[in-house]
Amino acid sequence: MMSYFPDVKRIQYEGRKSNNPLAFKYYNPSEVVLGKTMEEQLRFAVSYWHTFTLTGADPFGNPNMIRPWDGLSGIDLAKKRVEAAFEFMDKMGFQYFCFHDRDIAPEGDTLRETNNNLDIIVSMIEEYMKSTGKKLLWSTQNMFSNPRFVHGAATSPIADVFAYAAAQVKKGLEVALRLGAENYVFWGGREGYETLLNTDMKLELDNMARLLQMASEYADKIGFKGQLLIEPKPKEPTKHQYDFDAATTIAFLHTHGLADRFKLNLEANHATLAGHTFEHELYVARIHGMLGSVDANQGDPLLGWDTDEFPSDLYSTTLAMLQVLRNGGLHSGGLNFDSKVRRASMTPIDLFYGHILGMDSFARGFKVAAKLVEDKVLDDVVAERYQSYQSGIGQEIVSGNATFQSLEDYIIDKKVSVATSGRQELLLAKLNQYLLEAE
Amino acid sequence: MMSYFPDVKRIQYEGRKSNNPLAFKYYNPSEVVLGKTMEEQLRFAVSYWHTFTLTGADPFGNPNMIRPWDGLSGIDLAKKRVEAAFEFMDKMGFQYFCFHDRDIAPEGDTLRETNNNLDIIVSMIEEYMKSTGKKLLWSTQNMFSNPRFVHGAATSPIADVFAYAAAQVKKGLEVALRLGAENYVFWGGREGYETLLNTDMKLELDNMARLLQMASEYADKIGFKGQLLIEPKPKEPTKHQYDFDAATTIAFLHTHGLADRFKLNLEANHATLAGHTFEHELYVARIHGMLGSVDANQGDPLLGWDTDEFPSDLYSTTLAMLQVLRNGGLHSGGLNFDSKVRRASMTPIDLFYGHILGMDSFARGFKVAAKLVEDKVLDDVVAERYQSYQSGIGQEIVSGNATFQSLEDYIIDKKVSVATSGRQELLLAKLNQYLLEAE
Amino acid sequence: MMSYFPDVKRIQYEGRKSNNPLAFKYYNPSEVVLGKTMEEQLRFAVSYWHTFTLTGADPFGNPNMIRPWDGLSGIDLAKKRVEAAFEFMDKMGFQYFCFHDRDIAPEGDTLRETNNNLDIIVSMIEEYMKSTGKKLLWSTQNMFSNPRFVHGAATSPIADVFAYAAAQVKKGLEVALRLGAENYVFWGGREGYETLLNTDMKLELDNMARLLQMASEYADKIGFKGQLLIEPKPKEPTKHQYDFDAATTIAFLHTHGLADRFKLNLEANHATLAGHTFEHELYVARIHGMLGSVDANQGDPLLGWDTDEFPSDLYSTTLAMLQVLRNGGLHSGGLNFDSKVRRASMTPIDLFYGHILGMDSFARGFKVAAKLVEDKVLDDVVAERYQSYQSGIGQEIVSGNATFQSLEDYIIDKKVSVATSGRQELLLAKLNQYLLEAE
Amino acid sequence: MMSYFPDVKRIQYEGRKSNNPLAFKYYNPSEVVLGKTMEEQLRFAVSYWHTFTLTGADPFGNPNMIRPWDGLSGIDLAKKRVEAAFEFMDKMGFQYFCFHDRDIAPEGDTLRETNNNLDIIVSMIEEYMKSTGKKLLWSTQNMFSNPRFVHGAATSPIADVFAYAAAQVKKGLEVALRLGAENYVFWGGREGYETLLNTDMKLELDNMARLLQMASEYADKIGFKGQLLIEPKPKEPTKHQYDFDAATTIAFLHTHGLADRFKLNLEANHATLAGHTFEHELYVARIHGMLGSVDANQGDPLLGWDTDEFPSDLYSTTLAMLQVLRNGGLHSGGLNFDSKVRRASMTPIDLFYGHILGMDSFARGFKVAAKLVEDKVLDDVVAERYQSYQSGIGQEIVSGNATFQSLEDYIIDKKVSVATSGRQELLLAKLNQYLLEAE
Ligand SMILES: [Co+2]
Ligand SMILES: [Co+2]
Ligand SMILES: [Co+2]
Ligand SMILES: [Co+2]
Ligand SMILES: [Co+2]
Ligand SMILES: [Co+2]
Ligand SMILES: [Co+2]
Ligand SMILES: [Co+2]
Repeated sequence: MMSYFPDVKRIQYEGRKSNNPLAFKYYNPSEVVLGKTMEEQLRFAVSYWHTFTLTGADPFGNPNMIRPWDGLSGIDLAKKRVEAAFEFMDKMGFQYFCFHDRDIAPEGDTLRETNNNLDIIVSMIEEYMKSTGKKLLWSTQNMFSNPRFVHGAATSPIADVFAYAAAQVKKGLEVALRLGAENYVFWGGREGYETLLNTDMKLELDNMARLLQMASEYADKIGFKGQLLIEPKPKEPTKHQYDFDAATTIAFLHTHGLADRFKLNLEANHATLAGHTFEHELYVARIHGMLGSVDANQGDPLLGWDTDEFPSDLYSTTLAMLQVLRNGGLHSGGLNFDSKVRRASMTPIDLFYGHILGMDSFARGFKVAAKLVEDKVLDDVVAERYQSYQSGIGQEIVSGNATFQSLEDYIIDKKVSVATSGRQELLLAKLNQYLLEAE
Repeated sequence: MMSYFPDVKRIQYEGRKSNNPLAFKYYNPSEVVLGKTMEEQLRFAVSYWHTFTLTGADPFGNPNMIRPWDGLSGIDLAKKRVEAAFEFMDKMGFQYFCFHDRDIAPEGDTLRETNNNLDIIVSMIEEYMKSTGKKLLWSTQNMFSNPRFVHGAATSPIADVFAYAAAQVKKGLEVALRLGAENYVFWGGREGYETLLNTDMKLELDNMARLLQMASEYADKIGFKGQLLIEPKPKEPTKHQYDFDAATTIAFLHTHGLADRFKLNLEANHATLAGHTFEHELYVARIHGMLGSVDANQGDPLLGWDTDEFPSDLYSTTLAMLQVLRNGGLHSGGLNFDSKVRRASMTPIDLFYGHILGMDSFARGFKVAAKLVEDKVLDDVVAERYQSYQSGIGQEIVSGNATFQSLEDYIIDKKVSVATSGRQELLLAKLNQYLLEAE
Repeated sequence: MMSYFPDVKRIQYEGRKSNNPLAFKYYNPSEVVLGKTMEEQLRFAVSYWHTFTLTGADPFGNPNMIRPWDGLSGIDLAKKRVEAAFEFMDKMGFQYFCFHDRDIAPEGDTLRETNNNLDIIVSMIEEYMKSTGKKLLWSTQNMFSNPRFVHGAATSPIADVFAYAAAQVKKGLEVALRLGAENYVFWGGREGYETLLNTDMKLELDNMARLLQMASEYADKIGFKGQLLIEPKPKEPTKHQYDFDAATTIAFLHTHGLADRFKLNLEANHATLAGHTFEHELYVARIHGMLGSVDANQGDPLLGWDTDEFPSDLYSTTLAMLQVLRNGGLHSGGLNFDSKVRRASMTPIDLFYGHILGMDSFARGFKVAAKLVEDKVLDDVVAERYQSYQSGIGQEIVSGNATFQSLEDYIIDKKVSVATSGRQELLLAKLNQYLLEAE
Repeated sequence: MMSYFPDVKRIQYEGRKSNNPLAFKYYNPSEVVLGKTMEEQLRFAVSYWHTFTLTGADPFGNPNMIRPWDGLSGIDLAKKRVEAAFEFMDKMGFQYFCFHDRDIAPEGDTLRETNNNLDIIVSMIEEYMKSTGKKLLWSTQNMFSNPRFVHGAATSPIADVFAYAAAQVKKGLEVALRLGAENYVFWGGREGYETLLNTDMKLELDNMARLLQMASEYADKIGFKGQLLIEPKPKEPTKHQYDFDAATTIAFLHTHGLADRFKLNLEANHATLAGHTFEHELYVARIHGMLGSVDANQGDPLLGWDTDEFPSDLYSTTLAMLQVLRNGGLHSGGLNFDSKVRRASMTPIDLFYGHILGMDSFARGFKVAAKLVEDKVLDDVVAERYQSYQSGIGQEIVSGNATFQSLEDYIIDKKVSVATSGRQELLLAKLNQYLLEAE
C-alpha cells in the first residue's frame, strides 16, 4: 500500500531536550502517572474533519491545503482518506478517532443513497479498526453543511427537515453501534436562530428535545451503550446557538427531562466564545456530574470566531486537566483534537506539527496538574479557606439545621469583618512554579 | 416643607412635537393602549440607589454629583433623601420605587444597630407611602458594598458572613412585608469567584441555594406574598458571577429544587454583558414561565462594564416590550429604571432628563410593540413559517407519535431541499416602518 | 433579452405608509433635501461581490444561494452576471456600482490569461455603462482569495507574490481608468499577520507602502483622476490587519509619506469590529481631511466577525450621515452597500428586500441628520459648550499665545470647579425625537 | 523609625525550587544575562498609586485594604506613605518608583496650596532618594480624579480647566526635574469623550496637542532631559480615549508635529482592551522608534475593564521581553508595575506576593526571551521566510527600483503559487519548549 506521509516515521518520545521537531518532548505514552500510563490517562483522539477533510477555505479565501489525496472525489476520495487516516493515527500514536457521518463518505441524492455510501466506508473503517486496534472515541452527524439545514435541523421550521435529521441520527447511532463508539455527540450545528423576529423559540427548543428523546430511546432500543453527549457552543454559525454553554445546556436538559441520559462534550474555544474559561466549563459540568468528554483546542482571546487552534497554552491545559483529575479521569470520554492547522500551515507535515504541539501541551499540563494534586497545593488552600463550614455555625448551615432565626440570633450583635486574603497572587506564583518545575 | 427640586414642576405629557425638555413626548400615563392605561401597563419604578445615592465616583474619579441633600450624613442624610425621593416620584409621576436596604439607611456597628437605623427610615417611608399612595415595586439587600462581603455573602468561605447575610435577608423580607413590596429581588452582588484556584464552586453554589431556600421558607412563614426574583449578571464586580444569565439561573434553580418559587428580574445591560440581547433574555425567561420583572436600562455595546445607562434605544425597548406583551404584561413586575445619569451629567436636573428619556423610550417602544402585536406582523410570519408542524408528519412529530423508524420510512427516499427564506431583511424593514409610523 | 428578475418591477417610492414590500418608504430619489436630490446626496452603489457572486457558503455550510445565473461557469457565468447586474441596478434605481477585479471575470492560469478574461468582461460592462448611464463608484482588486495570497499580497514574504500583486493593481488601475471609476479602493485583504513569531512587521509595512507608492505614481502616470482610498479593518481574515482602523491607517500614511495621496473608505462593520462606532471612524477621517467614501452596512454588536449586514439601524445611519453632512457631502465618494443578504435569505427577491432596507434606512437617517443640521440642534450645544475658548484665556490658548507660565499665573489662586453637565440624556432624548418626528 | 512591614525581611533570590513564598524563584538581581545584570536589564519600578494609595473600593464596594498607615489623613498620611514606600522598595529590592503628583500629597483649595503640599513631600522624597539611592523612573500628573476634570483636562470644554491642567503639568515637570525623573508620562485620564453628540473632537485634539507642545517647550526651557512619554488606553474612564493605542497615538503625534519629542509608555492591559496583544503594541512602537517604557501588568481576557493585575502570564512576559531585547533594551525606560493586588487580597503581605509574582514572571520571561534571541530561534525563521527580498526581484522591490511595469513584465506569464507554510504550530511548540527548558 502506498504511504501518504512517506517522509514521516512514527513519532517517538525523545524528551524535554530533543531538537527533533517530529518527536514528542513531553508526551511519553507509556510513562505511568498517577497509576496509569499517559496514553490511558489522556485518551487522545484525532478529528477526522479538521485533519482529513479541511480545505483551507475561509470566508475570504479559496481552498489551499496541500494533501496527498488531492485530485480525487466522491467515494474514491473517501477511501483514500480512510487509508491516510489510519496511517496518520499509526504514525502519531493515536488510539482513538472521531468523525461526523459526512466527513467519511459523500452524500447522495437521497438519504438512502447517502446511507449506502456511508455503509461502504464504514465497512472499510471497520476492517481497519479490527486490524489496527484503533477505536472510535465518538461519532456524530453533520446536520449543518447541507443547504437543507439552513434554518436548523431538529429546530428547522420545516417538518421534513426534522424528519430528515431524525433519520440521519438514526443511521448515525447504528454506525456508532457497529463501530463500537464509546460516545455519541450532538453538536448543535445550526440549532439556534438568526433573528428572533421570525423565530418560535419554544417550539424549536421543544423539537430539539424531541429529537434527543427519540435518540435516547433509539440508542437503548438498539443496545448502544456509549455515552450521549451534547457539545455547547454560544454562536457561530448562527447568531445564537441554543446550547450556549454548559449551564444553558444543563438547564435545557433539566427542563426537558433529559438530564439523566446526556452529558457534555466541552470544547475550549466554545468556552471562551461564551465568555468563560475552559476550566470553568469543565468545572461546572463536573460538579453537575456531566463531564463527558473534551474537545481539546484553543481560541484566540482577541478574535470573535471559532479558530479551533491546536492547544498550546500550558495554563489552559493544566487547569483543564486539573478538572479532569478531580473528575476521576476521563472515563469513557477522551481528549479529542477538534483542532485545525492554521490556513497558512498548508503542507501535510503541519498536521504532524499541530498534533505534536497539542499532545505535548496536554501531556505537560497533565503532569503539572498531577503534581498539583499530589502535593495538595490547591486542595489544602481550599480546605483551609472553607474550614469554618466544618464546625459550629458553618456546620449547622451546611447540614440544613440553621434557619434565618437561628442565624440572626447568632449574628445580630457580632461585629463581622473579613480580613482573610484570597491569596490570588500567591497562588498564581505557585502555579507558575509548578508549570516550570514539576517533574 | 422645603422643595428639593424647586425649579421643576410636575412633568406633563405634551406630545410628540413639544420642545419642552421637561415634558413627556411619548409617555401619556392616562392613554389607553391594549385595554389599559400606559401607567398600568408600564409600571415604571425609580431606583433609589442610582437616583438618590449615586456619588459619581468611578474607578478613576472622585464624587462629583451635585445634590440638594449634599452636606449631610448618617440618618439625617437618609431622611432628607426620603423627602427628596417622594418629591421626585411625585414630579416624575412614578407610582413605584425600589431600594436596597443600605440605600435608605446607614449601617451601624452591628446588625442590630443597622436594623434600628433601617426601622427609623422604613417608618418614615411607610408614612410617605400612605400619604402619597406610592408603592414599593421591590426591595432587596446590599450584600456587596461592605468589606465583609469581599468574598461573597451566601457564597463566602466564612460561615459568619453567611450567617450575617441570612440575617440581613431576614430583615429585608420583614421590611418588604411591612411596606407591601410586590417583589423581593436577589442580585448576586459578589456571589461568584475571582479565581478558581481558591474556590470550591460546589459548596458555594449549594450555600447560595441554602440561603435562597431559607428565604423562601421565611417568606412563607411571615406571609410575604410578593414574587421572589433573582437578577442574573455575568461578571462585575467578580470575575464570574454565578447567576450568569437567565439560562444559567434556571439551571441553578432546577438543580437545587427552587424553580417553583423564584422567577427572574432581567436587566438589559446584564444581558448584553453576557453576550445576549435584552429581548433574548426576556424571551428565555418567558417561555420558562420565569419572567418576573425588568430592570430597564442599557449598556454600551463597545464597553465591557455595567454602565446602567438610561434606556434610549427604541429597538431595544420595542423588542423588550414585545416579550412583555407576549407574557401577558408585567403582572406584579414592573419596569424599574436601574439607570444612572452619566458622571458628566452631574446636575440635579439631569435626573429628570434621564428619567424622561427612559420613560419616553419605553412608552414609544410599547406603542410600537402593541401595534406589531395588534397587526399580527410577526405572529403571521411565525405561523406561516412553522405551519408544517400543524399537520402531517410535522403534527406527528410535535404530538409525540413519530419515531426514528417512522421518520426514516417517511424521508429515506425524499429529496429534501430548503428554499424558503427567513426574510430577515424584509422583517427589519417592517420593524423600522413600525418604529417610525406606529400611531 | 431575458429578464433575471422577471417578477420585480422598478422599485418606486410609495411613501411612509406603503404596505408594498417592493417599494421605498423613505428613499425618494428626486426629493430635494438641503439643495440637492436625495439621489445626488446619497450616491448609492451596489456591491458586485455580495449581490452577484455570493454563494452563501460559510465556515460551516455549503453554497445555498438560489440565483438566476446558477448552472453556468467561467466566462459564460461572468457575462450573465453582468446582464443581471445591470437589470438589478435599473430596477433598484442604482446609479453606481463597485467591484473587485475577480468578481467580474474568472482567473486564468497566468496573469496574462486572467487579464484577457477581465478585458472581455470590462468591454461588456463598458458598453452597458454607456447605454444605461450607470457609473463605477469604485473598483478594487481581490488579492486575498487565491491561495497565492495566503501570507498577504504586498506584505507577502515571497517577492513573486508582491510582484504579482503589483501587476494586478496595475491592471486594476487601467480598468478603473477605462471605466471612469471615481475612486479606487485598497482593502488590505490579508495584509496583516497570523502570528508575530514568524513576522517581520517592519518589512511588511514598508512593502505595503511601496506598493501604494507605486500605485499612486502609476495612477498619475496613466492619468487616473479618481480618489485613492484605503479601507481599514482590524482583523479577519488575518488575526491582525495592518489597516486596523482610521487612526492606524492615518499613522501609516503619515509614516510613509502617503498622506497627501490617499483617503479612507470607511465601513460600519469594520468600525465596530475595531471597537469604535461607525460615526467615530467617519469623524476621525473627516477632521483629518480623509473621509473619502463609505461602505454602508452594519455588524451585530454581539458577534465577533464581519457579518456585512444591510444597514437597518437608524441611529447609525443618522449619525453617519451627520458626519457626511459636516464633511460637505460625499464629494466623489458614495454609499456603497458592502452588505450581503443573510444566508437564510437565499431567494433572489431577498436581494431587493435587502437593498430597499439599506436605502430606506440611509434615506431616513439622512433626513433626520439634515433636520438636526438645519435646526442646529447639536451645533448650538457644541458652540455653547466650548464658548470659553472664544475669548479671554481660552482664546489665548487656541491662538497659541498662552504659555505654561501665563496659564499658571492666571490659575494659581483660582478655585476651579466644574458643574456644567454634558447633558447626554437630554441629547439622546432629542435624538429620538428627531428620529421619529423629522419631516 | 517604625517598620511598616515588620514581618517581612528583604526578599532574597532562593532559586527555582524554593518553597519560601517570600523569596524570588527566578529573579536573581545580580545574575548576568546578555552582558548585564538582571537588575540593570529589567529596571523594575514600583507604582506609588497601586501599592501605597489603593483603597480597594470598586464600583460595587467600599474601601477594604488593610494598611499600616490606616487612620491618618492629609499631609500626615502622605508622610507615612513615603516612609512605608521606601521601606517597601528596600525590602523588595526596587531601584525605581513612579508616581502621580496627587498620589504623594493631598490637594488644597487652590493650586498654590496644592503645590505647597507637594513641595513638602517632594522634599522628603528627595532626602530619602539621596540616602537610599532609589531613583524616580517617571512621574506624571493626575488630571482625572478631581471633579474639575469630569470633561477632560487639556480636552475640557472649559478653558479654565485647560489652564489648570497646564499649570499642573508645569509643576509636575519641575518636580520631575528636581527629583531627576528619567521620564515624564502623560496618560490621558479623561482626554476622550462620553458622547459625540456634544463633542468638538477637532478642537479637543488640537488642545491636547497644544498642552503637549507647551510641555515639551517648558521641559526644554527648564532643562528637563528625561523622555516624554504618552501612555495609550482605548477606553475607561471615558467611553473613548483619544490615545486609543500605539498607532492612534503615533498618528496624533505626526498630525500635530510632536513625533520627534514624544515616545510611548505601553501597558499590557491597555493593549488587550484595545484589541491587541501586549507584544503587538511593543512591536509597533519599536519599529516606529517610539518604545519608551513599559507598564508591566495584565488584564483578564474575559473582562472588559482595566484590572491592572500583576503580570503572571509567562507567554506575555516572554514575548514582551523579546520586543524589549530587539529594542536594544529598555534604555531610560523600565518595567513599572502598574499592577494592583486584587480586592480580595487585602492584607499588606499580598503587596509582597504580588510584586514577587510580577518580578519572577518578568525575570523568567526575560531569560526565555534572551535564550530565544541567543539561539536565533525566531530570527532564523524570519530570515529564511523573507529571503526572497534579499536578491533578484525582491531586492529590486525593497531598493525602490521596481515599477508596476517592471513587475508586470516579470510576472505576467508566471504561474505563482505559494506552498510555504508559516509553521505557526511548530513555532508554538518551540516557544513552549523554551518556556519550560531555557536555563
Ligand atoms: Co468541538
Ligand atoms: Co470549535
Ligand atoms: Co439591575
Ligand atoms: Co447593571
Ligand atoms: Co467594505
Ligand atoms: Co466588512
Ligand atoms: Co498604566
Ligand atoms: Co491599566
